[in-house]
Amino acid sequence: MKNRSIAVLAAPALVLIALLVWAPPATAAPASGDSHGLPPMILIGLAAMLIVAKLGGELFERIGQPAVLGELIGGIIIGNLVLFGFTAAEPLKTDGIVSALAQIGVILLLFEVGLESSLGEMLEVGWSSLFVAVAGVVAPFFLGWGVSAYFLPNESRLVHVFIGSVLCATSVGIAARVLKDLGKLALRESRIILGAAVIDDVIGLLILALVMGAVGATMAGGSLSLVHLAWLATKTGAFFVSAFAIGHYAVPHIFRGAGKLRSRGVLLVLSICFCFWLSWLATKVDLATIVGAFAAGLVLEEAHFKLFKERGEHDLRELLEPVTTFLVPIFFVQMGMKVDLRVFVRPQLLGFVVALTVAAIIGKQVCSLAVAERGLNRLAIGLGMIPRGEVGLIIAGIGATLMLPNAAGIAEPVIGPATFGAVVIMVIVTTLVTPPLLKWVLGRGVSSRQ
Amino acid sequence: MKNRSIAVLAAPALVLIALLVWAPPATAAPASGDSHGLPPMILIGLAAMLIVAKLGGELFERIGQPAVLGELIGGIIIGNLVLFGFTAAEPLKTDGIVSALAQIGVILLLFEVGLESSLGEMLEVGWSSLFVAVAGVVAPFFLGWGVSAYFLPNESRLVHVFIGSVLCATSVGIAARVLKDLGKLALRESRIILGAAVIDDVIGLLILALVMGAVGATMAGGSLSLVHLAWLATKTGAFFVSAFAIGHYAVPHIFRGAGKLRSRGVLLVLSICFCFWLSWLATKVDLATIVGAFAAGLVLEEAHFKLFKERGEHDLRELLEPVTTFLVPIFFVQMGMKVDLRVFVRPQLLGFVVALTVAAIIGKQVCSLAVAERGLNRLAIGLGMIPRGEVGLIIAGIGATLMLPNAAGIAEPVIGPATFGAVVIMVIVTTLVTPPLLKWVLGRGVSSRQ
Repeated sequence: MKNRSIAVLAAPALVLIALLVWAPPATAAPASGDSHGLPPMILIGLAAMLIVAKLGGELFERIGQPAVLGELIGGIIIGNLVLFGFTAAEPLKTDGIVSALAQIGVILLLFEVGLESSLGEMLEVGWSSLFVAVAGVVAPFFLGWGVSAYFLPNESRLVHVFIGSVLCATSVGIAARVLKDLGKLALRESRIILGAAVIDDVIGLLILALVMGAVGATMAGGSLSLVHLAWLATKTGAFFVSAFAIGHYAVPHIFRGAGKLRSRGVLLVLSICFCFWLSWLATKVDLATIVGAFAAGLVLEEAHFKLFKERGEHDLRELLEPVTTFLVPIFFVQMGMKVDLRVFVRPQLLGFVVALTVAAIIGKQVCSLAVAERGLNRLAIGLGMIPRGEVGLIIAGIGATLMLPNAAGIAEPVIGPATFGAVVIMVIVTTLVTPPLLKWVLGRGVSSRQ
Repeated sequence: MKNRSIAVLAAPALVLIALLVWAPPATAAPASGDSHGLPPMILIGLAAMLIVAKLGGELFERIGQPAVLGELIGGIIIGNLVLFGFTAAEPLKTDGIVSALAQIGVILLLFEVGLESSLGEMLEVGWSSLFVAVAGVVAPFFLGWGVSAYFLPNESRLVHVFIGSVLCATSVGIAARVLKDLGKLALRESRIILGAAVIDDVIGLLILALVMGAVGATMAGGSLSLVHLAWLATKTGAFFVSAFAIGHYAVPHIFRGAGKLRSRGVLLVLSICFCFWLSWLATKVDLATIVGAFAAGLVLEEAHFKLFKERGEHDLRELLEPVTTFLVPIFFVQMGMKVDLRVFVRPQLLGFVVALTVAAIIGKQVCSLAVAERGLNRLAIGLGMIPRGEVGLIIAGIGATLMLPNAAGIAEPVIGPATFGAVVIMVIVTTLVTPPLLKWVLGRGVSSRQ
């Protein structure tokens, strides 16, 4: 029965792909005339990407894995069909419109992650999470740096720093999903893991901001001075302080005013505008858009939407969900498609992938040493911090678009195709190993304070 | 109190606009590095467009007009700020990503309109609606043609035909909204109006397909032969028949199979994929994408989603609403922005606008003659058919991207900037005059069969 329903869903996917192959690459003149900048090819491409995402997600959910892995691996598969002469999917990898939709999806995803965590909650989990988070950032960062310096000796130091920063952030979404699936969300260990994962995201994004600033300085002909670093750190701090100030003083007034408007959809549109505005503002102080989106989510609180709720409107998260359901899979499938499996025929790259993955897993075990409270299952906390996800992928994706002069003075991307592939594999493996490891360590009957 | 809440919402809009002005046009290197094809400028542009849409919509709803008018007029205002030296909004008018988002919004809007009307319902309103619809298409079409031929004597005959087709379609959304606001939705007259408006959409889109095919033929050096017209009509008919066949035979199986999938969001994603797939398929037979999207909506029925509903998922329309709430206003604001008020300084163009609007209003009064049933308020039916809206705008927008050689043999758009402006003004005026006219004629106490 299960297989049949998958087969039924697979049938239209096959039809789609067959049509994609059959379709002549250059469409006739009258058909392309109504494009308005949206070639029909993109529509069928988006449909194919979404179907692949849902099929991959479903398959992985059925074998007890997070859907996001299925989306990534589905993307890897269709992206590498080019090895068998299937080139119809090639334009989607770099298409401007697909990338823009994926990017808007990621901005809204980080906004959602920010919405799910509030400042108050983060303060409540307190010092335990903070210690765990800091330990879980420092160790993988330097391990990643070391692995990169060993395997890519000819690359600039900034490349190593970038790879280090990719290893920092534990995925809040994947960690929460794994703990929920194991039925352990209520454990104090789980709450510490999730609190630390959120702090990790913030620290990871801060490091990204610093690294991007450094790359910018290098590009401008200078190099990274301590003064420059301090200036970047100040700007980043100022951005977050301003965001929180806006959230505390301006946002409640704006939403209270907007709550009196009669037209439908005000809550959703205003929230998206606020998210886009802070994302844009972040780029003005040389931060990534996603930092601003995350800050926008952190700053918005349920309390601001009281007026909307009172008149029976849907919750903001409920309203955002259909939008992200549509846009976010495009990001993960496109990330998977960008993984070129051909780079892995070089044996030394396989070594790099293994070392990077091991660094990612081992690095987070330092977290267990940072658990200050007694009577907790330290091993579980270290293992729960393993999964990397969206933030690591996003940082790697940004690295792939940043150019840096290499040893010979020629500009090339900070994260080349080989490194990008290695990062995606690392994300996949860390997410795959976490559930069995956690199940094993939590199932051993080690008692835990509830 | 009302004014205050608008002022509170206007404040961030002013901040946005101020920042837009203040922002240097070329952003610094490191910030643009993380664009992935999504320049931060677009984010703030989208936020500004959405805020303008909501403010305009709110103002118009408060004065008892449909929100869509406020979005259009808001767009016209920010699009023409360039007259006062404000150029920051200029790139948004033609930006590829904004246009693509607007286009996806329109595709999903027509999908929604299609979802709201089912084949069964259309057959039920029966012959009355069909006669009204056909009369309401033929008269405005030839009146529009005549007005165009009189005011634009040097243009090709295809331009006149295109302008005629812009006048065909009554807006289902605006007509339904006006009747609902008047509390008259249950009248038999109202049901005939809405049924006829839906049939109008179909006929309007069919004419668009024929005209586009003819433009394509002219572009290819040939001209429109009767054989060619017959071939286009056959293809269009074949497309609709295939769409209904797919809807009847394949869709129930696909959705029943998909209903057994466990992952979230399957219903929304699968429906969007189906809509995109039919939209793309439509372009393969030289139809516009929106024709496919509308057909996709017509073909999907509530019954297909039974399995999803049984497990407590949201209704498809409810799931689509946040997505269209986010994307559709971008279309209407961009359409408004494209209206260049400077073209109206030419007096003969003002005459064209007035004549076109009068043709649009008078043309639909033929509908009242086509009412076969007795005892109905014929005048109300004719007046209720007046509002033009999304379909007219979409056809005009497509015309603006179609190129045709003029008398001198140089390719220029079928719908030039002046004609486009005239069409938008016509849409605004027809929508503005309908509610007071209908209120007057329905309030005169002429009895009506319920």
